[in-house]
Amino acid sequence: MSPKPMVRPGGRSARVQESVHAAVRGLQAEVGREALTVPLVAARAGVTPSTIYRRWGDLQELLSDVAVEHLRPEGPPADLGTLRADLGAWAEQFLDEMASPPGRAYIRDALLGDPDGSNAGLCSAFAADQIDIVLSRASDRGEAVPDIEQVIDQIVAPMMYRILFRPSQLDAAYARALVERTLSKS
Amino acid sequence: MSPKPMVRPGGRSARVQESVHAAVRGLQAEVGREALTVPLVAARAGVTPSTIYRRWGDLQELLSDVAVEHLRPEGPPADLGTLRADLGAWAEQFLDEMASPPGRAYIRDALLGDPDGSNAGLCSAFAADQIDIVLSRASDRGEAVPDIEQVIDQIVAPMMYRILFRPSQLDAAYARALVERTLSKS
Repeated sequence: MSPKPMVRPGGRSARVQESVHAAVRGLQAEVGREALTVPLVAARAGVTPSTIYRRWGDLQELLSDVAVEHLRPEGPPADLGTLRADLGAWAEQFLDEMASPPGRAYIRDALLGDPDGSNAGLCSAFAADQIDIVLSRASDRGEAVPDIEQVIDQIVAPMMYRILFRPSQLDAAYARALVERTLSKS
Repeated sequence: MSPKPMVRPGGRSARVQESVHAAVRGLQAEVGREALTVPLVAARAGVTPSTIYRRWGDLQELLSDVAVEHLRPEGPPADLGTLRADLGAWAEQFLDEMASPPGRAYIRDALLGDPDGSNAGLCSAFAADQIDIVLSRASDRGEAVPDIEQVIDQIVAPMMYRILFRPSQLDAAYARALVERTLSKS
């Protein structure tokens, strides 16, 4: 999926985005998600409501953009020395974060205010990039590695599907079992 | 997942639900999704807006309920004589329906106006029930069958994940490949 067009770092557009995102994060913590309004966010960010409407369309699209930033990985997956260990640890942490109440709320916001699917695509690209790092490392070690799309189908997809549609079995053992099934049968 | 409490068939509650759902379906076709409002739906259904607000909370929750009804299977999967054929045909049809523009819109509506996750759970239960029919038939024929949760993880989840987050490969060949991988390795 192609990410949204980047804004010029340090440019006015980037500063507006940062102040508006910061206002949303601050207000979510102070007054809660339900009490958010565009005028409230605009006042906190020091911009006009029309600036927000012009750039984001509506509150839900703004919340979607903020949610995606929350879902962006903070660093590369841990290197534990083997594909099985790296993929297992990554899957366990991914599930732990995504299935948490805030994780679910961010996934929901990312999907809801995202008519063109670009934010959902970004979420998937975040996971794919992390998996790609794990697979490349393993390949450099000389390990046999599954195809990245297979890892997405057999490990990422089941976790995300259950979080959204079928909340059950969402524990570390489930994440490890998906990895085991994928590696033992790939 | 437990479905929402059933309304008494034929009771006033059931009649209100049917007339309101019918009003939404009719108006969606006539004026489009974006132009829908609770007062518009209420007027068409012959109920007061407060009846709708009292029962559904807001328009998004109403749209979620209507979407779930659209996603309810119309009948049991075809019996083609083998597990591979039945599961392949079901997966192909499921993907075809869910990945279509209306299918995507219904999935989106079902998820969005569904704070407690009960409608998302119903969507998952619809698929699980269809798969259970296919697996039971195969088992009666003496075929070896995979666990239903495994079929959900390896066939349903990848299709739904890609529809929502990673729209690619969404064709009949992809659905058949998921079935093939599941059956050849289960």
